[in-house]
Amino acid sequence: MRQIEEWTAQLAELAIFGANVQPGQLVAVTSYIGKEELTRALTRAAYERGAKYVDVLYFDQWLKRERIQHAADDTLDYVPPWMVERLMHLSEEHAARITLSGPHAPRALLGVDPARAGRDLLPYLPQSGEVVNRRTTNWCIVPAPTRSWAEVVYPELERGDAFRQLWEAVAHVCRLDTGDAPAAWTERIDVLKANAARMNDRRFDALRLFGPGTDVTIGLLPSSTWHAGDFTTVDGVWHYPNLPTEELFTTPDPTRVEGHVSATMPLELYGIVISGIRVEFAEGRAVKIDADEGADALRSAAAKDEGASRLGEIALVDRDGRIGPLDTVFYDTLIDENAATHIALGNGYESPVTESADKERVNQSQIHIDFMIGSRALDVDGITHNGDAAPVLRDGAWQI
Amino acid sequence: MRQIEEWTAQLAELAIFGANVQPGQLVAVTSYIGKEELTRALTRAAYERGAKYVDVLYFDQWLKRERIQHAADDTLDYVPPWMVERLMHLSEEHAARITLSGPHAPRALLGVDPARAGRDLLPYLPQSGEVVNRRTTNWCIVPAPTRSWAEVVYPELERGDAFRQLWEAVAHVCRLDTGDAPAAWTERIDVLKANAARMNDRRFDALRLFGPGTDVTIGLLPSSTWHAGDFTTVDGVWHYPNLPTEELFTTPDPTRVEGHVSATMPLELYGIVISGIRVEFAEGRAVKIDADEGADALRSAAAKDEGASRLGEIALVDRDGRIGPLDTVFYDTLIDENAATHIALGNGYESPVTESADKERVNQSQIHIDFMIGSRALDVDGITHNGDAAPVLRDGAWQI
Repeated sequence: MRQIEEWTAQLAELAIFGANVQPGQLVAVTSYIGKEELTRALTRAAYERGAKYVDVLYFDQWLKRERIQHAADDTLDYVPPWMVERLMHLSEEHAARITLSGPHAPRALLGVDPARAGRDLLPYLPQSGEVVNRRTTNWCIVPAPTRSWAEVVYPELERGDAFRQLWEAVAHVCRLDTGDAPAAWTERIDVLKANAARMNDRRFDALRLFGPGTDVTIGLLPSSTWHAGDFTTVDGVWHYPNLPTEELFTTPDPTRVEGHVSATMPLELYGIVISGIRVEFAEGRAVKIDADEGADALRSAAAKDEGASRLGEIALVDRDGRIGPLDTVFYDTLIDENAATHIALGNGYESPVTESADKERVNQSQIHIDFMIGSRALDVDGITHNGDAAPVLRDGAWQI
Repeated sequence: MRQIEEWTAQLAELAIFGANVQPGQLVAVTSYIGKEELTRALTRAAYERGAKYVDVLYFDQWLKRERIQHAADDTLDYVPPWMVERLMHLSEEHAARITLSGPHAPRALLGVDPARAGRDLLPYLPQSGEVVNRRTTNWCIVPAPTRSWAEVVYPELERGDAFRQLWEAVAHVCRLDTGDAPAAWTERIDVLKANAARMNDRRFDALRLFGPGTDVTIGLLPSSTWHAGDFTTVDGVWHYPNLPTEELFTTPDPTRVEGHVSATMPLELYGIVISGIRVEFAEGRAVKIDADEGADALRSAAAKDEGASRLGEIALVDRDGRIGPLDTVFYDTLIDENAATHIALGNGYESPVTESADKERVNQSQIHIDFMIGSRALDVDGITHNGDAAPVLRDGAWQI
């Protein structure tokens, strides 16, 4: 267990590095029951960095279960106003924000009605995307291993072994095992940014992604640029919003998506596992959503608002990352989305779009749901403004 | 453990009964890491009662430790604004409020500087007393047994036995063992209210409390009335703010307290244990505060503001309650203050004072700290407006 204590301290330091917590800053942490050890370690690390106050909210998925099972139907969309006021205050004060990911008590929502579950998105707030787009907060999401999460990923292992195995995997994909995770990430993100720069040089009009069960063409906005690794706040504070990160991403044209996609990995959405997702797009909209299980949770989320059935993100992941080769489903979007090329329904990021006329066309929604459609069997072509196709990814390797 | 599960469900129901949760009401819960089981049970019970939303905040004393140990000195009084906005919203919306008491991770604050600890009163808010006095929320505090609390109360027992023993004691003092705790409390509170009514008939000008280490005279306001058991909101919703409750209390004249008191029980204050408290009062003010341990925490709290060194409450506890006979220190003010006669430094309740001129004289402060000075060896006299003394309590029995 001493190794797990060391990893906990290192992961805490990595979160503070990723969020780039500044002396005197307010630091907000979104945590969950079961993640107390990492939460305490990163609280200590934040105060040692000079944080003014570390404002931790612990959420409990078993309370969400009680709500979904027992609350009146007309109350399920209620969001406590203080949660929104808190988020707005974090934005106004230019705070740091850290979120711990990983399935939270995966058994808590077993057997609940997915349609009701899809209406309670807390602690996710509809205003989260807007605050990200304001670039007022420096933030970072890192995974927080728990025993109950480990059981889901490694059901064949004994409980203690599964927990140890999950920590080993997280330590590997977060590059704690390099001995200097911040340096390792700086190096990897430099490579990702070089890949993004080569994509930007090509100025494709659209991408076509095709392979088993998927053939979709996704239009880009005239000024959509590819982005990787870091964000910078309006105050010039760089930060790594996701650790691990292995993707290049951009913001697509929400009106130009045609074709069909099949997810290559299951998705954990607000506590519900959705597997075998198949979506058909026409004129940008997801017009048909199916899944082997949990389809109603995704349909319910995609019906949240006008933009919820349109794309806000397209991200390319090559075969050089550390996650894909593990060939493991982590049921954690943060890790899984960095295993494979993916798209997201819902709110788009404005920062990859450079022209203000294009910013107005970025998809807006209360939701942002990534799901993985990539694998080494998924080919990606860039489509030029002349309609020519140029290979971008083949067998997970860059062709540009 | 099945018994503990049953007690948990019964205590959850008692909290909902005590707060008198109304259908459609917002229900705020203040809980702590380690108290998840009772929190989940009362969340379920609240939704079954028709709660609109159960808004639980889990606090973690180990995070408080990190703050007290590592945060800069000039940040320790910071209170996140959203916490105040949330409390004000609860008041405006006329919500129900439930708080779980009992030492929270008693080891978390071992060895920290009591003066620094006394500056971080969270989750207690300076505005709490004001909201109580507005009578807009129906609220209830109940104890929540934990293993770490049990170790403090029964250090001589093995850990599992101590937990079971603490639950047995809590089940007894909360009258769960009567088979119908709400009915048992209704009956006991009727007796307490009859005692209060007899005290009110006497219209004493002051009380003198005297016994080993204590001889103090506490003036009352002209319209100070004795109160027991229930409060009623401005909407007419009765509720039992404290369960268990064994006290009659009133609001004293903050300018007329003379003499000295010695605490008969140690006090757990914001995680610090303060034992052997001795306080001298002159013209209403605590002019000297000593203690065998933790004196600085109490001094620091009593220096918070002008009213923090004056009395906001005097409460009489007879020998017929269920707590005193256990002869056990629970290190939980909710239970311990109902074992013995006590006084409180800081904010006073307005509701026991009937005349508006007197309401203006009620002590105001950000703090409200009860400490126990009673025992069967403490005698209580009522002092009439003529200066005559009449016996009120002898050997813990009513003389009126």
